[in-house]
Amino acid sequence: MTSPISNEFIQQLTLTEKASLVSGKDFWFTAGIDRLNLEKIMMTDGPSGLRKQADSADALGLNQSVKAITFPASALTAASFDRHALTTLGKNLGEAAKNEGVSVLLGPGINMKRSPLAGRNFEYFSEDPLVAGELGAAYVNGVQSQGVGVSVKHFAANNRENQRFTSSSNMSERALREIYLAAFERIVVNAHPATLMCSYNAINGTLNSQNFKLLTKILRDEWGFDGVVMSDWGAVADHVAALRAGLDLEMPGKGPQSVTEIVDAVNHGDLTEATLDIAVKRVLKMVHDWHVDSQPKPYDKDAQHEFARKLAANSMVLLKNDDHTLPLANAKDVAILGELADKPRYQGGGSSHVNAYRITTPLEVAEAAGNTNYQAAYSLDATEADADQIAKAVVAAKQADKVVIFAGVPEALESEGFDKTSMALPDNQNDLITQVAAVNAHTIVVLQNGSAVEMPWADDVAAILETYLAGEAVGEATWDVLTGVVNPSGKLAESFPIKLADNPTFGTFNASPLTETYHDDIFVGYRYYDLKQRAVRFPFGYGLSYTHFSYHDLTVTDKDQSVEVSYQITNDGDVAGQETSQIYVANHASLVEMPVKELRDFAKTELAAGETKTITRTLPRRAFSWYNAETSNWQMDDGDYTIFVGRSSRDLDLHQDVTLAWNPQAGAPVTPDTYIGAIMARPDLRAALEETDMAKSFDALAGNDTNSEMMKNMPLRSAIMVGVSVDQLNAFLKLANQVK
Amino acid sequence: MTSPISNEFIQQLTLTEKASLVSGKDFWFTAGIDRLNLEKIMMTDGPSGLRKQADSADALGLNQSVKAITFPASALTAASFDRHALTTLGKNLGEAAKNEGVSVLLGPGINMKRSPLAGRNFEYFSEDPLVAGELGAAYVNGVQSQGVGVSVKHFAANNRENQRFTSSSNMSERALREIYLAAFERIVVNAHPATLMCSYNAINGTLNSQNFKLLTKILRDEWGFDGVVMSDWGAVADHVAALRAGLDLEMPGKGPQSVTEIVDAVNHGDLTEATLDIAVKRVLKMVHDWHVDSQPKPYDKDAQHEFARKLAANSMVLLKNDDHTLPLANAKDVAILGELADKPRYQGGGSSHVNAYRITTPLEVAEAAGNTNYQAAYSLDATEADADQIAKAVVAAKQADKVVIFAGVPEALESEGFDKTSMALPDNQNDLITQVAAVNAHTIVVLQNGSAVEMPWADDVAAILETYLAGEAVGEATWDVLTGVVNPSGKLAESFPIKLADNPTFGTFNASPLTETYHDDIFVGYRYYDLKQRAVRFPFGYGLSYTHFSYHDLTVTDKDQSVEVSYQITNDGDVAGQETSQIYVANHASLVEMPVKELRDFAKTELAAGETKTITRTLPRRAFSWYNAETSNWQMDDGDYTIFVGRSSRDLDLHQDVTLAWNPQAGAPVTPDTYIGAIMARPDLRAALEETDMAKSFDALAGNDTNSEMMKNMPLRSAIMVGVSVDQLNAFLKLANQVK
Repeated sequence: MTSPISNEFIQQLTLTEKASLVSGKDFWFTAGIDRLNLEKIMMTDGPSGLRKQADSADALGLNQSVKAITFPASALTAASFDRHALTTLGKNLGEAAKNEGVSVLLGPGINMKRSPLAGRNFEYFSEDPLVAGELGAAYVNGVQSQGVGVSVKHFAANNRENQRFTSSSNMSERALREIYLAAFERIVVNAHPATLMCSYNAINGTLNSQNFKLLTKILRDEWGFDGVVMSDWGAVADHVAALRAGLDLEMPGKGPQSVTEIVDAVNHGDLTEATLDIAVKRVLKMVHDWHVDSQPKPYDKDAQHEFARKLAANSMVLLKNDDHTLPLANAKDVAILGELADKPRYQGGGSSHVNAYRITTPLEVAEAAGNTNYQAAYSLDATEADADQIAKAVVAAKQADKVVIFAGVPEALESEGFDKTSMALPDNQNDLITQVAAVNAHTIVVLQNGSAVEMPWADDVAAILETYLAGEAVGEATWDVLTGVVNPSGKLAESFPIKLADNPTFGTFNASPLTETYHDDIFVGYRYYDLKQRAVRFPFGYGLSYTHFSYHDLTVTDKDQSVEVSYQITNDGDVAGQETSQIYVANHASLVEMPVKELRDFAKTELAAGETKTITRTLPRRAFSWYNAETSNWQMDDGDYTIFVGRSSRDLDLHQDVTLAWNPQAGAPVTPDTYIGAIMARPDLRAALEETDMAKSFDALAGNDTNSEMMKNMPLRSAIMVGVSVDQLNAFLKLANQVK
Repeated sequence: MTSPISNEFIQQLTLTEKASLVSGKDFWFTAGIDRLNLEKIMMTDGPSGLRKQADSADALGLNQSVKAITFPASALTAASFDRHALTTLGKNLGEAAKNEGVSVLLGPGINMKRSPLAGRNFEYFSEDPLVAGELGAAYVNGVQSQGVGVSVKHFAANNRENQRFTSSSNMSERALREIYLAAFERIVVNAHPATLMCSYNAINGTLNSQNFKLLTKILRDEWGFDGVVMSDWGAVADHVAALRAGLDLEMPGKGPQSVTEIVDAVNHGDLTEATLDIAVKRVLKMVHDWHVDSQPKPYDKDAQHEFARKLAANSMVLLKNDDHTLPLANAKDVAILGELADKPRYQGGGSSHVNAYRITTPLEVAEAAGNTNYQAAYSLDATEADADQIAKAVVAAKQADKVVIFAGVPEALESEGFDKTSMALPDNQNDLITQVAAVNAHTIVVLQNGSAVEMPWADDVAAILETYLAGEAVGEATWDVLTGVVNPSGKLAESFPIKLADNPTFGTFNASPLTETYHDDIFVGYRYYDLKQRAVRFPFGYGLSYTHFSYHDLTVTDKDQSVEVSYQITNDGDVAGQETSQIYVANHASLVEMPVKELRDFAKTELAAGETKTITRTLPRRAFSWYNAETSNWQMDDGDYTIFVGRSSRDLDLHQDVTLAWNPQAGAPVTPDTYIGAIMARPDLRAALEETDMAKSFDALAGNDTNSEMMKNMPLRSAIMVGVSVDQLNAFLKLANQVK
């Protein structure tokens, strides 16, 4: 047989056969060609577990799929800040896919979290592109190491669910590059994913599936991507325009129409066969490279369940722990309140919805440990408080030494397909927590939610454990952390504002059904809260441990085109633990708006009690750059930077200033637009000023503070207004530009 | 003599003569042509009083000018919300100009206040374009009624002083139109100013002085402006490019070079003589229309001083007045603290700086009333507190029944030419207020400042009177209000945030020396604080009176293409007073981001004690519109609006919902992009759904809340994913679009 990726093979194809290859055969399969023994391959959702549908396929998780391990949602795994763990997760998913006959896994989702209301936040990693990019690349490497391809999604700027098929994400080129594309770029360059999934939305008015700049110029020409771009399910509005823009595979197919519309377009000259051939070649290469045996085979689901438990426990974020309330001695001697203990929220809704292999609820784990002190205390089907239920719960809380309240966002309020309208927990849960905390000083809140929530009671409870959507081993993992079997080491990969109104998108998110204007620009998440000096409930990068880590001995070394950062961390406590240290860079050099600081690297380190380790990381050029839309370049500017190292975005014990020179030396030319303030600040120009008598004019006028301040903001060309002649000015410009 | 505005006259001009006319002869004069008896005319700063320089002219207020009445700065006069008072101010200024031989007065300044740090805020009216436009038009009508022309400045988006000659104001077209141009448009259309002054800055990368879209397309073609556009002093970087863009008059001239560069450009074909002729004609028409006798004549300066006093007193804003602390029985029996009582800040620095006719300080007015209890308490030259000075002040405060502290921003910190870096008062003043308030429960703070300031002590003092920069009658006017001779009726024309970090521009204002990015977009001032539900210290439109007004009996009447709003106000108190009632519109109809509400009209009404008046105002189409950049139109949408009426932007007792139809009836067409949610919401489409069997598919899938929410966000074209065939879809589209 001719190799299906050879030119000869493509020459054998009829136009109709070619046309058939650039759309899905159906919901989950590419088209095969029996005549040429070209097999079809299967692709399947989703990022946190296999959603292989047996029959009556649909795109939205509406129907059942074969059983598979439900791993924690990305909102939680991101909190691990653990590249190695994400690679192992990828390997587990790849193993499951391979053994289920699935060639391409539709994930990971790596979009940025700009609003806590976005319905799909649970499926994404972070508000920070470095975190999403690093963890996403680790995940992709894991999956693809098993011979299974991934589809990194949703490309790009797919940040709301409402009107997601048509809404345009309108933003500056700089925000697009620095925030919304950066994680995709990192994964494409570092992990070579088999495919990317093009999202529904438009960017600046052009539908992504028809966006040549996005799908070809940036993705392929700039980043060197050579895989397949497939559409999100139903994202293609104009198949021919999509092919022209660089989209290779429409998913799912529309049936015969998908084929005939392409054939017609070629025949009518609306689409060149050469363009079609490019897409066909890419699809054939994907089928060739990632094809797996379609026959299902068994694999060790129990081992995967154990990994899901471990991953969840190592990702959960201890947000508060006053007076060593946690860890608990055991799961037995506490009052357990909240229906979520019995009916946990452990995964997101929509396409990522998995038919779990074996769910362990927090309640059954506690009961297995002998705990008999449980009350539902609220109903997940209601939002208003039931006074009787709460009163009973308060009685139990009064009698207990410690209380664990399971709280969170019910599934009906949070899913793919629509955005939330509030970041509050239901009233019945908030009331419960408030009233219980009032009678029991050892109230522990365990949260199950897909995205940041408001915690008006945060100051009143003793401990808070954020478990997000922890996967099917939620019960075991939660108690592992609560009882100290696992020392928590998760840190928030997103900021938790005090209230929704503090978020930069408040008031404009989903305000228009037509467009979403990214007023926050590059200031997403902590970049915004830092810039605005806004208090947050829990900052980006924050998370506690049952031990304590101290930071010391920072050294920063200029390695010419990179910067080496080295520091020590000591585990000061009595138990072993893991610490995610974070390196932020503040740019004082660039003459553009800059975030106060940006996360540029992180490292997770295991430390025995009393142990000290040295961490050494190298920050590349990119860590000091910003995207200059005028020159279409990542620009590094010469000047001053500060390197910060510490526990979270708002807990940075170490910092070091450093002056860096990235560029070949070039003095700024003096022009008529150069400000007098800039001239005055350059002692090397003093002689030229004197020679042309301009110094005299300037000195005379800068008589008092006000005038002096005012003059700084006058360009040389306006010096005529303070008595300088045109000839003097020209003479000075000539002299000034000889000074070097 | 041939009329200088006839074509014959222009034909007599040599190219050199024409070229000489499109630049200033010098700092304050247009060029004359002796050969043809064409006289030159004089123009002079500034908005709050004549700054006619006798000799050694300069643009920056560095040198002395002839004595003239210093009226209150626009920051204060705006607070009058009194169109009639602004017209009278204009008449006074026009009278002064005419009698000093000044043909064109360089003012008013009407730019929007987007940051409290902007150095020139004192010279502008408001954060709201309706207020700036209405008061600016009244002012212009007043000046021009005296036969003196105005130059409305600074056109446009001139919102910072730092790097003001080159900085680009980068914003959306909608923000430009709705916020930054709207006041100019209102004045051009309603008051026909003789000239506009083109500002230094660029907009979206194009220098305003070379901006054809701004100076010709919008200003002349859209708004019908037929006057002269002159440059701000030194704003022309490329004279030929400026003429091509529609700038008529370069100010000041650069001497012979200004002429030769134009002659050369015409000779080399870089500028057509026809283009030059257009500018020449406009300049000649200005000279013809607004020429006044150049011989100075006396005018009644004492009467103008009295008007300055009355205007100031009627504009001052009573921000706080607990327990009727004010009015004082007299100016005698209070302790007076603060050097600003003796050396008041009564006008702004830079080009608006006037050589005052007769300054009355608050201290001398009090002393004339017999008050001998004054201490400087701080030094205006220092910012750090002097402990001895404050201790002495505290002693005096303890002994006094009531204390009046004069506080404010020293001139060195606030002027044209540079922006502020803080909105705090100097530490020595804040310390004084805090310590005095701690010992005297009747502490009254009188503020003198050009822009909103932080008041960390606001909750601790009994009364606060905002006097801004009150002009030369500052002393008389301040005591008029403090003692109740004048019942205060000023209201804030700008929001006072609690702290600078609350302002939408915080963190990005002046962050780049190259550009200013308007992240706040249309959400400037109260539009932002409302949208973000942010608490403010004092809201836009707020101000107290010594009496109380109640609002009642709102009626809203749809008059087809306008809306009539009628309501009653009753003066419930014991003294006469004036009340500025405000009408806001909330737009629920438009499918774009909208402010929570926008000020659409206001009225100032005098009411005797116990009196009730009915106010009837008509809101035109524009009050219900937004600027659609895609269609380049002011768009009114059919649907629901709410009319609010009340005392301030956050104190609106009355409201009425109204459903308005502006457009000829047109049902939205159903397309493949129409969302299923929109289809489901239209009962008229149910039959078509049934007929094509699509209803069945939709109903089956919308089985639970989550799926139902998700489906709303799916367009018809994606219905294929829930089992609808392409044929069914097309049949439905056909049927649906027949329904009307």
